[in-house]
Amino acid sequence: MSSTLSPSQIFDRMMEKDLFSRWMGIELIELRRGYCKLRMSVRPEMLNGFGILHGGVSFSFADSAFAFASNSHGRLSVSQTSQITHVKAAEAGDVLIAEAQELQLGHKMATYDVKVYRDENQELIALFRGSVYRTSRRFDQA
Amino acid sequence: MSSTLSPSQIFDRMMEKDLFSRWMGIELIELRRGYCKLRMSVRPEMLNGFGILHGGVSFSFADSAFAFASNSHGRLSVSQTSQITHVKAAEAGDVLIAEAQELQLGHKMATYDVKVYRDENQELIALFRGSVYRTSRRFDQA
Amino acid sequence: MSSTLSPSQIFDRMMEKDLFSRWMGIELIELRRGYCKLRMSVRPEMLNGFGILHGGVSFSFADSAFAFASNSHGRLSVSQTSQITHVKAAEAGDVLIAEAQELQLGHKMATYDVKVYRDENQELIALFRGSVYRTSRRFDQA
Amino acid sequence: MSSTLSPSQIFDRMMEKDLFSRWMGIELIELRRGYCKLRMSVRPEMLNGFGILHGGVSFSFADSAFAFASNSHGRLSVSQTSQITHVKAAEAGDVLIAEAQELQLGHKMATYDVKVYRDENQELIALFRGSVYRTSRRFDQA
Repeated sequence: MSSTLSPSQIFDRMMEKDLFSRWMGIELIELRRGYCKLRMSVRPEMLNGFGILHGGVSFSFADSAFAFASNSHGRLSVSQTSQITHVKAAEAGDVLIAEAQELQLGHKMATYDVKVYRDENQELIALFRGSVYRTSRRFDQA
Repeated sequence: MSSTLSPSQIFDRMMEKDLFSRWMGIELIELRRGYCKLRMSVRPEMLNGFGILHGGVSFSFADSAFAFASNSHGRLSVSQTSQITHVKAAEAGDVLIAEAQELQLGHKMATYDVKVYRDENQELIALFRGSVYRTSRRFDQA
Repeated sequence: MSSTLSPSQIFDRMMEKDLFSRWMGIELIELRRGYCKLRMSVRPEMLNGFGILHGGVSFSFADSAFAFASNSHGRLSVSQTSQITHVKAAEAGDVLIAEAQELQLGHKMATYDVKVYRDENQELIALFRGSVYRTSRRFDQA
Repeated sequence: MSSTLSPSQIFDRMMEKDLFSRWMGIELIELRRGYCKLRMSVRPEMLNGFGILHGGVSFSFADSAFAFASNSHGRLSVSQTSQITHVKAAEAGDVLIAEAQELQLGHKMATYDVKVYRDENQELIALFRGSVYRTSRRFDQA
């Protein structure tokens, strides 16, 4: 059922088009089927009205890790429902890690947890959980 | 308990610092206590690896409407947990509306729904629900 | 694509087996495709360690309304992810209403909101949102 | 800030009133500050219209583990928002485990994950995540 493309080939194909992940400046640290770890630095243009990281950007960062982890099996997977719990504020200059882990891989649906934390001291910033619908389209047939 | 600042004065103070909402190019359509309606256009740098609007950007757009609606009462309110369900894809060039409504306003917590839809045909893009923790700090004392 | 069975025929088939909804003592008030309204009374055996309605029972009550609303189209639909926000406590003797509304009906997924409120004064108890996966099995072919 | 009551003294006080957890037949396996593991057997009166465990009962079971874990610190904590993802069906006769773990303990809010799985083969049934609001009331002063 898995693709003949490797997770990193799939990542490369996605990143080519993923202009928003590029805007965030995400950097791939580790990738395997069902798992993805990313790094990004908080820039001033990512801040909200309280002068801290906009909740939508921490969500987006987690969402990208989630997308790469869930698509790594080679079947095109689309986000269905996701949830985020904000734990601590992040500030301009912080370097953040998003680590996505597969909790459950079903035929039609799969579920992932993503932890966003500060690289320096491992302090938790946000907890993300998301589910994808796994289409029958495969990356190697696209 | 309400602030002596009007919702639009609070909005202006927040927007001054909210560089990410400015990056998104959000435009205020309507604002009152507990309610906020925003407009934004989907630009190429907001797309994901499938060439459609990144789920994190639709979340961010909803999250901004949520922040303006929940802070409009004059008490500094911070997002605690939010959830998004993606319904349809949006594409570059689409003009989107985010409409935040207050479902419940408690002493410590409040809950909001945000609908994101295409302005042209009212087609639903995403459903967002979020809860804030209402701090005791007031905008007019900041 | 709709079933030749009516919503109330589907409801009857489900309720025949739904021993937990019967334990809750739910009563059908209104049902149509994509919509369901139920009533139930809070009994002492539904209370939690604080002497108020157990959050799991308010969830269950909403979940049953959600199940009847989503299956009313005649395609067997299974709950995928659901979320509840607790607003007020309910107590023994309270009569509650659960009202499920369809927000979005897709080919594979559908999303519903359920409001749980006190019948007497319409006071909101809980807000529920859930998504189902719509299987291809139909009730009239079961 | 912790209570002078032990987690098991708090558990006993809660269980004394928690008639619904008693109805479910929950059994305590392990308890410490921020952690709780429960067991329960699926009985026919817990089934739904498809003849499998009602989603509300698996939620309730997880919710009880969540309540005991979050109250174990001695401060009265009330559930704010919870989410469940259903993974597999459980059937009458199944023996289930709910294991609640603390992800984050803040001054006002705390977040927990609960896994519900089949005791026999460790097969995952449901994934639960919930947040509590931590009141200033303490069990030892109640």
